[in-house]
Amino acid sequence: MPDKLHTKYVLDEREMPRAWYNIIPDLPHPLAPVLHPGTRQPVGPDDLAPLFPMGLILQEVSTERYIEIPEPVRQIYTQWRPSPLYRARQLEQALDTPARIYYKYEGVSPVGSHKPNTAVAQAYYNQQAGVKKISTETGAGQWGSSMAMAGAFFGIEVEVFMVKISYQQKPFRRSMMQAYGATVHASPTNLTQAGRSILAQDPDGLGSLGTAISEAVEVAASSGGTIKYALGSVLNHVLLHQTIVGEETLLQMAQADDYPDVVIGCAGGGSNMAGLAFPFIRERLNRGLNTRFLAAEPTACPSLTKGVYAYDFGDTVGMTPLMKMHTLGHDFVPPGIHAGGLRYHGMAPMVSHLHQLGLLEARSVMQTEVFESGISFSRSEGIIPAPESNHAIAVVRQLAEDCKQSGDEKTILFNLSGHGHFDMASYDNYLDGKLEDFAYPEEKIKEAMKTLPKV
Amino acid sequence: MPDKLHTKYVLDEREMPRAWYNIIPDLPHPLAPVLHPGTRQPVGPDDLAPLFPMGLILQEVSTERYIEIPEPVRQIYTQWRPSPLYRARQLEQALDTPARIYYKYEGVSPVGSHKPNTAVAQAYYNQQAGVKKISTETGAGQWGSSMAMAGAFFGIEVEVFMVKISYQQKPFRRSMMQAYGATVHASPTNLTQAGRSILAQDPDGLGSLGTAISEAVEVAASSGGTIKYALGSVLNHVLLHQTIVGEETLLQMAQADDYPDVVIGCAGGGSNMAGLAFPFIRERLNRGLNTRFLAAEPTACPSLTKGVYAYDFGDTVGMTPLMKMHTLGHDFVPPGIHAGGLRYHGMAPMVSHLHQLGLLEARSVMQTEVFESGISFSRSEGIIPAPESNHAIAVVRQLAEDCKQSGDEKTILFNLSGHGHFDMASYDNYLDGKLEDFAYPEEKIKEAMKTLPKV
Repeated sequence: MPDKLHTKYVLDEREMPRAWYNIIPDLPHPLAPVLHPGTRQPVGPDDLAPLFPMGLILQEVSTERYIEIPEPVRQIYTQWRPSPLYRARQLEQALDTPARIYYKYEGVSPVGSHKPNTAVAQAYYNQQAGVKKISTETGAGQWGSSMAMAGAFFGIEVEVFMVKISYQQKPFRRSMMQAYGATVHASPTNLTQAGRSILAQDPDGLGSLGTAISEAVEVAASSGGTIKYALGSVLNHVLLHQTIVGEETLLQMAQADDYPDVVIGCAGGGSNMAGLAFPFIRERLNRGLNTRFLAAEPTACPSLTKGVYAYDFGDTVGMTPLMKMHTLGHDFVPPGIHAGGLRYHGMAPMVSHLHQLGLLEARSVMQTEVFESGISFSRSEGIIPAPESNHAIAVVRQLAEDCKQSGDEKTILFNLSGHGHFDMASYDNYLDGKLEDFAYPEEKIKEAMKTLPKV
Repeated sequence: MPDKLHTKYVLDEREMPRAWYNIIPDLPHPLAPVLHPGTRQPVGPDDLAPLFPMGLILQEVSTERYIEIPEPVRQIYTQWRPSPLYRARQLEQALDTPARIYYKYEGVSPVGSHKPNTAVAQAYYNQQAGVKKISTETGAGQWGSSMAMAGAFFGIEVEVFMVKISYQQKPFRRSMMQAYGATVHASPTNLTQAGRSILAQDPDGLGSLGTAISEAVEVAASSGGTIKYALGSVLNHVLLHQTIVGEETLLQMAQADDYPDVVIGCAGGGSNMAGLAFPFIRERLNRGLNTRFLAAEPTACPSLTKGVYAYDFGDTVGMTPLMKMHTLGHDFVPPGIHAGGLRYHGMAPMVSHLHQLGLLEARSVMQTEVFESGISFSRSEGIIPAPESNHAIAVVRQLAEDCKQSGDEKTILFNLSGHGHFDMASYDNYLDGKLEDFAYPEEKIKEAMKTLPKV
């Protein structure tokens, strides 16, 4: 055992940042506009009004650098925030690396992940707008349970379309949403036109996030304004809400009297990566630093490393606005290996844009390496990470090994987005030798590109 | 929504108490001696040496009021400690009560419960004694996973006998132990004489904590000294390690400028109740306060409310020393309603003694009330509690209702011993209306009393 087992950096509630950070005004080049799915013209706030309350739409397009966190949201945040930053000394020892490894731990929230950072904010702005019901989708279930909890806090009914394979493989995330009072459907359903059309093509289909989004969007869009829609990643306002993670971490790294050379996060829709990275990207731009940013994604869903940067729909049916992003094609259906997160066909436009600008790199990792990383982390640090977070840990280990080889004493920071207490079936499969590595075939991506909408 | 949603009281790492509190020297009457199962004479440290390292045996019989927490244990504690104390303002609002409700939250540990407080300490003292392997048992799995994690930290192999019904109903607690590197068996097994004899009587038996203890004790006792045994509750040294919970809470209640009128905890073996209560019992005795202490237990396993106070074995087969405690008889097999915790036939001798002295009251609650309490807590406070903790919440709600009726502004404090992320199947059963209330029949208890050992 090392002399010092680990170190935790905590902030007092009063030190919790009072504003979210909006990276838009600091981008070296502007974001490509979001286009209307019908007219293919840039959308304005009014086009989004059927889906979102105006408070969130204004954040989506805001050019203000800082947006104050409303007091009720701050108060709920303090249930689990500021979250701890750890120096992973036992992991460093296990990896025999000269690197200093830090992790920000978001699994301390009641649902065990970073998702409530935006769910609570979204529920608040909906409540302010008098909204009584929200429809949403969920993949692995972290987002759905966060939105269900936030709905319970603000007295808003929540209806969740949960990707069918997750609904089957992760029944306890479903139970969690129901415990908070939400209604949960296995998507595709017969409840929506989108669901029925997808079932008509493939009655036994296990669903995808794209499909579930189509269903949830349809429910809101066809409600005549009584139901709004909520999304757990991808959009600018969602990434904005997650920046509290990076803002806290900046203060905590200062406590540690250290600063990261590399910032790592797993990336599915991109909000976890963005939440930690954006404040550090601001510092890099403002202070002329050389900090590296690395997004870790599965080889089974390699939107940043293998996808194209192009306009695409956010959903399968083509109901959402068109966003310029890294995409595997909106028809993408992930292989049903295990019902993990990080299985979205696209990537947040802001994260895609930063990747395109060369400010953010990406790596993809195979799932056996992902789970091996999770097991070694658990035995060193105690926390059993969510499979999503294990992607980040796999990349951390690669860099720690590089440091070992070169003798470099680099400072590595990553976002441990959540715990794996709902994912033990996947750990079981790994420990039983049942997980197979899989890389999404290049031919399939080429084929999917043919379906990209013309703009 | 109330104006103030909740308040969290946190301690800095440097404020974490440096000693555990041993209540033995403060007891108004001494504890009844522990007896040797063969001779029925009081046991001495040497009698316990085959099972435990001397560091823990000395704590078991210590009359020192404070025992310093060793530095490596302190360092590991700081991974999740000091744990937060919350004022449950949203719950108060939901219950419409004038009572002020506080809860200490132990679910922030990597395994999600209070059990690592003692697992880490036990692993440390075993490592100091050069022990390479520990055998133990687990019921609901919180203890087994804590011991597995602590073993991983200190390089000690861990073998766990898990009650068969839990092994079947809670496979993910089993996976968690395996993720930490432990070996897990469904008890009763064919690996031990105890297991074989129990299987011979009932080949389809689903096991009990008493049986699993017999197996784990046998493995250690017959190892010729190479394997030690560890227990997750009941014993004096285990309760001692949990007092860090109450010591922290005393400091946090002072921060809140408040003091509890009632202290509530759920009780199975008694360590969770003791951990929070003992430091407050010390204050009551020293300062002449009137603080009430209330243990909450299931009607399905009512050792304090229905059991007798008598000498009994800690296990089914009769291998352990005899302890004077509240017991339902060592043959007790809990009804297989759901594989929750709080299913032990006995109760910690110290908790039993305090109950006998009138310092600690007990109430039993039916399981539908237990889960109803958990659901209402989740929707108010966000955290989905472990079913064990829901017993405490049920009693809190009863007292909060009393306050509502009488207008009394009582201060109620309880121990939220863990989260329920591994217990969603039980929540499912509750939400689906499948949980049935059950009170352990009085005739069965009377019958069990006939098997109590003569002393």
